[in-house]
This record gives sequence, structure tokens and C-alpha cells, in this order.
Amino acid sequence: MARITLDEVNGLDAAGFVARFGGIAEHSPWVAERAAAARPFDTLTAFHAAMTSAIAAADEATQRMFLRAHPDLAGRAAVAGELTAASNVEQAAAGLDRLTPAEMARFQDLNGRYAARFGFPFIMAVRHADKHAILAAFDRRVRNDPAAEIATALAEVGKILWMRLLDAVVPKPCGRLTVHVLDTASGCPAPGMVIELLRLAPTPVRLKTFVTNADGRLDGPALAGAELEAGSYELLFHAGPYFAAAGNALSAPPFLDRIPIRFGVANPEQHYHVPLLVSPWSYSTYRGS
Amino acid sequence: MARITLDEVNGLDAAGFVARFGGIAEHSPWVAERAAAARPFDTLTAFHAAMTSAIAAADEATQRMFLRAHPDLAGRAAVAGELTAASNVEQAAAGLDRLTPAEMARFQDLNGRYAARFGFPFIMAVRHADKHAILAAFDRRVRNDPAAEIATALAEVGKILWMRLLDAVVPKPCGRLTVHVLDTASGCPAPGMVIELLRLAPTPVRLKTFVTNADGRLDGPALAGAELEAGSYELLFHAGPYFAAAGNALSAPPFLDRIPIRFGVANPEQHYHVPLLVSPWSYSTYRGS
Amino acid sequence: MARITLDEVNGLDAAGFVARFGGIAEHSPWVAERAAAARPFDTLTAFHAAMTSAIAAADEATQRMFLRAHPDLAGRAAVAGELTAASNVEQAAAGLDRLTPAEMARFQDLNGRYAARFGFPFIMAVRHADKHAILAAFDRRVRNDPAAEIATALAEVGKILWMRLLDAVVPKPCGRLTVHVLDTASGCPAPGMVIELLRLAPTPVRLKTFVTNADGRLDGPALAGAELEAGSYELLFHAGPYFAAAGNALSAPPFLDRIPIRFGVANPEQHYHVPLLVSPWSYSTYRGS
Amino acid sequence: MARITLDEVNGLDAAGFVARFGGIAEHSPWVAERAAAARPFDTLTAFHAAMTSAIAAADEATQRMFLRAHPDLAGRAAVAGELTAASNVEQAAAGLDRLTPAEMARFQDLNGRYAARFGFPFIMAVRHADKHAILAAFDRRVRNDPAAEIATALAEVGKILWMRLLDAVVPKPCGRLTVHVLDTASGCPAPGMVIELLRLAPTPVRLKTFVTNADGRLDGPALAGAELEAGSYELLFHAGPYFAAAGNALSAPPFLDRIPIRFGVANPEQHYHVPLLVSPWSYSTYRGS
Repeated sequence: MARITLDEVNGLDAAGFVARFGGIAEHSPWVAERAAAARPFDTLTAFHAAMTSAIAAADEATQRMFLRAHPDLAGRAAVAGELTAASNVEQAAAGLDRLTPAEMARFQDLNGRYAARFGFPFIMAVRHADKHAILAAFDRRVRNDPAAEIATALAEVGKILWMRLLDAVVPKPCGRLTVHVLDTASGCPAPGMVIELLRLAPTPVRLKTFVTNADGRLDGPALAGAELEAGSYELLFHAGPYFAAAGNALSAPPFLDRIPIRFGVANPEQHYHVPLLVSPWSYSTYRGS
Repeated sequence: MARITLDEVNGLDAAGFVARFGGIAEHSPWVAERAAAARPFDTLTAFHAAMTSAIAAADEATQRMFLRAHPDLAGRAAVAGELTAASNVEQAAAGLDRLTPAEMARFQDLNGRYAARFGFPFIMAVRHADKHAILAAFDRRVRNDPAAEIATALAEVGKILWMRLLDAVVPKPCGRLTVHVLDTASGCPAPGMVIELLRLAPTPVRLKTFVTNADGRLDGPALAGAELEAGSYELLFHAGPYFAAAGNALSAPPFLDRIPIRFGVANPEQHYHVPLLVSPWSYSTYRGS
Repeated sequence: MARITLDEVNGLDAAGFVARFGGIAEHSPWVAERAAAARPFDTLTAFHAAMTSAIAAADEATQRMFLRAHPDLAGRAAVAGELTAASNVEQAAAGLDRLTPAEMARFQDLNGRYAARFGFPFIMAVRHADKHAILAAFDRRVRNDPAAEIATALAEVGKILWMRLLDAVVPKPCGRLTVHVLDTASGCPAPGMVIELLRLAPTPVRLKTFVTNADGRLDGPALAGAELEAGSYELLFHAGPYFAAAGNALSAPPFLDRIPIRFGVANPEQHYHVPLLVSPWSYSTYRGS
Repeated sequence: MARITLDEVNGLDAAGFVARFGGIAEHSPWVAERAAAARPFDTLTAFHAAMTSAIAAADEATQRMFLRAHPDLAGRAAVAGELTAASNVEQAAAGLDRLTPAEMARFQDLNGRYAARFGFPFIMAVRHADKHAILAAFDRRVRNDPAAEIATALAEVGKILWMRLLDAVVPKPCGRLTVHVLDTASGCPAPGMVIELLRLAPTPVRLKTFVTNADGRLDGPALAGAELEAGSYELLFHAGPYFAAAGNALSAPPFLDRIPIRFGVANPEQHYHVPLLVSPWSYSTYRGS
């Protein structure tokens, strides 16, 4: 289904809103019903916050009922083809439709012990995980304190809601990606460094090529507004030619040459600042601000 | 020509040594003649040091004559097919056999100005460079102080000799690659993180897959001895699943997931230690010891 | 009271052990009684683990009773002079005996709300905190989920027990402090750098002065065994003279000159590795391994 | 002598300018004479650039004569009390007026060898150095290539001129100090962290205390304009209370608590950006932009 705009979201009447978004929270249209009153939403982030706030404001019995409305991972519903469409896509993305018999047995065992301990199924935002990471988390969480585990499960629900909302609504084009390169060998911004920007999924595509300016930055955002979509990216910094041109003594081949920084954009309404602090022999990066 | 061993190098008589290695220093067999006396060589690094020491010990007139024995980059000799085999391979690796007319004109101009200023041709270890980086360095070096430029040219010769020696002699299998992962969010080594090791050239090949032990290290070197060849490598750290399994709150997709660290090994007789200091939102690496 | 050795701890009969350590866990000699059976203790770390395991193994009612045995911070017992000696020292170290009337009122309000919500007093290892940090934590924790707050309170108890045990028993002299300096401008260990080591409390005292060796390390541990006591230290790295002597172009004064790294040693039975990665314009440190 | 303003500098006639600044370049009023024509100077940085450009534009014989006009370090002129006032202050700041006989002998030996090799005395901006670092640099530079050593000596002269100009003229109040704290454990700016700012010399004085805002920054520059003087500073980041209040699990005492970052401001007309990237177990800083 095509994504609609925030203006369209805000223009729906209450019934239309619930018709459209009642299924975002698994089998729980009441979440959308309560969130509807918080409109208008300036951002998809605000829409999401209205959904998670509605859940947080519910009493514990309602929260438990809500958690129980979720399917097991790799469970009977999946085997029987009874998942919601969204759950089906998510579980397949994590490879849960292609388990070995031993893995399937391990999931069934964990599903059983988890449900016995907490009274609701194990919930995890699996779209970007793999089965090994899921099993490791499952194994850790099944031993959690019950109250801590409700909090963890609700946090995972929050991530699932966010990804489902991103599939349904066009985010506000207010995000951007910016880049900065500092040469820590010379203590100044790194001018004239070539940087390639790639989108990694579904297949790697080079989006743009930049050259840093005198302040070690690009002349504008690397990506801005609708250009910045949720997903995985790579910045490829041509550090070797930069240091060679600057006269640094390098080995052949240099220890550092093309430096790839891969990062995920979860919320395209935010600002992602990705700095590179680099000498010929070391580098650091972090999510900046 | 097949590479020979250090034992074979040390077993050659003086004439045989010069016959074999007289061409390593461009048109200057005297370099090998003088280096021969420093045998036996325990390592290729020692062999190389004997060659560069012979050049450093020569008087300035001899050094200038030696520098003059080198061909221009993208110069008449290249066009006329009169390069030594080694120079030909090196210039082609940098793309200097495929210049546009404008680039060719720029090289001729720089070659002329450089020779007029310094009295010898521009020398640069170009096998791992590209024409843009070479032109940037050329443009910077043509304005160097003459004495500083002799030192720079001899340093580049040192790198060229090293790469030619690596083509001719099997290095001593005493090098190794080691890896260490520290979780800076929890202040402890990162156990259980999957790490893939790839050789990048000529085409990327995955060599091995590791899992860090309780000390955040591998149980032995990632590569040791003859396994560690000169060239370009990538370590791919599976940080996302590690942090997810450890219970860190991550976005979906996580900001950091697979972290690639690409690095070059110039001297396979050395120890390359590549640490990763990583939190869910930042990382650093450096050539350690 | 003078500290006793682990051998003496292990040699006590059960009654003697409880007589000596029954007061470590606030008004709760049963903790020591249950821990006694885990002897012999090879380390103070093991002794501490036996105490915290005894608490963790208790049922929730016992745990709550145990938590209720603790005094309020800045509460009635403190005002009335009815604290245990240990609690009295700890609260005074944090300045809780010198509150303004407004601060006192804020503590009373938080104490009341906290007790009403959780049924036990607010517990925090305050010996190294100050009243502002305590109030900030108090304010955050009073809104915690009840189960999460029990876990947090027990974690704080663990820290309090550790500090009380350190006052009562000589730790095993198996810890050490090591140091490493890497020059990230040149990609190699930093030899010949002067490093001063200071103990900071009760008043700063210079303990030793070192010079790094060819591997950028000290020739042995900076502190080892009984020399490494719990407390606060500073390493003062003379980076400016190192880089000046190495020929780096520096400003006057240099951006970085003497670099102080201050760190706390909580458990003197552990290995503290403190590396410095440094260029003339940047540095990093971390707890290494 | 009181410092004058840039407006006053620009208002001087040529004779007045040379009368005032002819002594800045050691015994070489021609440097100021040639720099005078570059007025008006918008900044002291521009004034300094005019002086160093005048020297760089001179022919080599003039440059050598200029270098020869400098006194030996710890040399005959110093012993005889014949230094210029500026040189006298500078050499005393480095402790060169308080050498042991062995150190004095080492200086005389190096002075002799250096002059014999290069034909001019050893020049170094010593005001922020100590005798050990000076001797180490001396020992390295006496073996330099002659042309490289002229370049090094002129670079040191540039630093000496800068410090003398700072003593003579009020810089333009266009510099500033800014600070940023990023929490790399949580991937976001660190709000609410207390930061103390100290001036370190002549004796440590606390200048200001800040609290970071929601973006991990201060609401304005920490120092701006005339407040930012050349010299040494310390930022003391209260990281321990920040992480404790944020609910991170810390040891007692924490590994990191108060984090001091000491840095030098050489040019108060510039922007000094000092970021702290910090987790409970690691931190980095660098000169940012």
C-alpha cells in the first residue's frame, strides 16, 4: 500500500484513522484509537510517540493483554501461515522461515519457557537481526526479572511500531546527514578529501561523491529531507590520497587508504552527523550532533 | 620470475647476487654490489635496509646520478616503450598509461619544471596511488626546497625498492596479525563477537571467520607467518549482534552493525595489531603494538 | 580496626567469622552467616561475591526486609545520631551531614515518596558521590519501576559491601596497573616519554616517575600487588616534550603538553591497563585489558 | 611596556612603526621595515604573517645573516649578560639560567658542533620548553640536513616572533573557546554535565563553572574575545556525577570521575573547540573546529 503524507494522516476522521492504522499495533486497534486524539502530528516521530504513550499510559493488565496479542517468533502461527502480514514480513527478514530443525526446536523450547515465566510471548524487533542474535537475546531475556522484561518487551514493541509506521507514512523531510573530517595528525580540518556516499541495501549503489571544503566539511548536507531514507549507508573516505598529497610519510600500501564507515539511519527525521577523526595510523567515528 | 628464499639470497656468491638483484635499484647495480657485503640477511627488512644504507652512504653527486637514472612518470621513455619492466608495471598500476591528453600535458609541464629545478626526474612510489594523488603530490613537491626534495625522493626510492624486493624474495615468516575488541560502553573486553577477515585484492575473498574469546581477542594470530602477505585486508566486526545480545538499547536498524576496518600490510615481517574500541554509537581503531 | 588477611578470614570459625563480619551487611548478620560456608576465599573479590550471592539467593521478602534495614540518607537516624558507624562515615563523606535547610527538605520529601512507593529506603553507595549527584539519582530512581528499583538498590548494596570489605580485609596482592603510549601521528609506540604517577587522595602525592621504553610501555607494572590500593590516581604524560623532541611542528605553547589522566581503582585485585593514544592535537584513553 | 592596539599599530608612521617593532626580530630591524608596508593589519595574525613573509622573501644570504644575529642558548652572551631583554626572559623561562655544570658543558658542545655544521646558532622557541626537551631537540637537529635545518630554524623564529608580538600588541578579540560533550555510551549529547574552566598559569584559578545544555554544549562560548588570552587552561568535566545520575552502572570509586583536559592557547584570535567524547570507561578529545 502506498505511503500517505502526514497531512493526509492529520486530515483523516477518527474512524478513517483507525481504519488505516488500527493494525499497526498487533491486533490492538485501541492503541491507534487513543493516539488519534493527539493529532495533528507535525512529524512521524510525534505520531510514533502518541502510539507508545498510549501503550505506556495503559494499566498493566491492558499492557499484558497487548503483549499477549503478539505471535511467537518461529511459532505455531508462523508455521500455520496465520501471522499478520507485517509479522510475516518481519520474521522472514530475519530468516525465521528458514530454520534448521535444531534451531526450530530451540525456539520452541525458549518460547515455552518464556511464556511460562512471563505470561506473554517473546517480542523482538527482528527485521534487522539474524537468528543467532535473536537466540542470544532470547536466551538472555528469558532469565530477566519479570518487571524488567515487560519494559524490555514494550521497548521492542516501540521499535516494531516505528518500522511499521515508516512503511505506512512519508516522514517529514526535516532530517539530514552531515559529515566532517578532522586531521588529527595536523590538528586541523581536512580539506580536499574525496568522500563517496553509498546506499547499501538492497544492493550497494553510489549516491554521490563529495570533496571536503576548507573546513573539512561538505558545502551542504550530504543528504537532506526526502533524500535521507531509513536504511544502511556507507561513507568511503579517501584518506590515503589525502595524506599522500599532504606530504605525510606513508608505507606502500598505506596502512589506511579508503576508510569505509557504515551506519544505519533508523529515523530519517533526525540529524545524523558522522565525523571522521583521522591520522595516517588511526581513526575514530561516532554519531555526532 | 619465481621468488627465492632468504637462504638462497645468502647462499649466492657476489656475482650471482648482483646478477639477481643489480636491477632492483633503477639502472644502478652498484647499490646491490655495496649491499651484498652486509649479508647474511636474517630478514627481507634487513636486505632492504642494506640497499637503502648503501644509497644513503653515497656522496651527493652519486645520489644525484642515481636519482637521474630514474624515468619520468608518464614521460618520453614510457611513451616510447623504453621503461624497465619494473617501472612499466608500476606506472601502469597507477593508470599512467591511460592519461587524457590534458593530464599528459600536465605531467609534461611538471616533469619539465621539476627537472629544471632539481636536476633529476620526479620519483614517487606510484603502485598504490592514482593519477590524481600523484599530480597533487607532484604539484606540492615541485615547490620544495632542493635539499628537502632530495630527501623526499630518496624516501620514495626506498618504498620502490621495498616493493621490488617483495616481488623477488620470500619474506621471513615472522609477521602476524592480531585483533582485540574492547567494549567501551561496558569497559571490558568484548567476548563472542564474530569477525570476518577478508583479503581485498585482486578480488575480495573471505579468508577466515573468528569469534572473540573472553578477553576480546582471538585464540591466536588471525594470520601468522607466510599467511600474512603484503596487500590490503578487511576485518568485518559484527558489532550489532554483539550489542543486541548484550542487551544494549539499539535503534532499528542499529547505528552501527557490521563495522569494516580496511588496512594495508606493507611489511609482512612485522606485527600488525588492529584493535577496535567500540560502543553502540562510536568506534576507534589504530595500528597498535 | 586493623584490616585482617584473607588467611585470617579463612581461619576463623563460623562464630568468629560472623562476629567479625556480621555487621558488614547493614543490621543483617544472616548475610555473613550464609557467606561463611563459601570459604576459603582466594580473593576479597570472592568474599564479596559470596556476600552478594547470599543476598541474591534470598527470597523477595527477605530481600525487602534486608533493604528496609538500611537508614534513610540524611534522614531521622542521621539527625539523631543513630547510624551505624559505617553508614555515618559514608554519609559524611558525601557531605550529607552539611546540607542546607532546602536540601534537607528535598531529601525528606524524596525519602517520603520513595518509601511510599517501594516500601524500603533509598540506598546508594554515596562515599564517592556528592549531594548534587545523589539528589539527581534520587529524583530519577523514585520514578523507577518497582522491580527495576529493587535490582538497582541491591546493586548499590553490592558497592557498599565492597567498600566495607576493603576497610576490613587486606585484598590479595594480585592486581596491577600498566600503561602504554601510542603515537597516533607516527603510528608507533611512543618511546622516551616521561610519565608521573600520583595518588590523589587524601592529598595529591607523586608516587613514581617513569620513562616509556621502546615499546611505549614501562619495563614492569606501574604499581603491583599491595602497592595498588583502592583510590584515585593520576597519570601525567609529558606529551609536549615528547612531540617536540620527535620533531613535530607545535604551537607555542603547544595545544597538548602535560596530559593528566585521572582514574579510580575500585578493586585492587584487578588489572588496570591505562593506554594513551596521542597525537599533538588529540588523545584517547580507556580502561584496557 | 604596555601593549598597544592594532589601531595604534596601523596609525603609526613608518619610522614610528620601526621604532616600536624593529627589535621584535632579533637585531634585525629590516624585518619590521619590510612588514610595515603590509599595513593595515586586521589581526595580530596578519601582523605576524607580514613579519614571517618578509623573512621568507629574503634571499638565503640575508636569511643566514638574520639567523646569525640570534644568541646561543645558554651561551657566552647569556653568561655575560649581553642578551636582548626578550631573549633573556625567554631563556630564563626555560631554566637555561640555572643549568648544572654538566648541562652547561653539553650546551657548549652542541653549540659548537651546531655552529660548525650550519654557520648559525641553534634557535628554538624555548619559553614553553624545559632544558631536557631543548637538549633532546638540539641533539636531533644538529644532525639535520643543512637545508632542512634552515627551514626548522626559521619556523622556530616564527614562533618566537609570535610570542614577542603577543607581548607588544593587543590581539583582535575575535577568538573563542567552545566545548561540546557527547556521551558515546548512549550516542547522544550529554546534558547537565558540570564543567569547570581553570586558567593554569601563573597559578591555577577557576574562571567559570558551566552546565551543558540539552545539546551537550554551553549556551555561548566558554571564553570569547578579550577573555581568551594566550596561555594554558584546564576544563574539568564532572563525568562521574553525570553518568551516575543517568543510571549507568559504575564502580565505586568510578573509573572516570572528574576528567581534566589541559590545553594551550597559542593564538587567542583563533577558535578553540574542545570536545569530549566520553563513556564511563573511555574518553577522547581533540582540537576541533
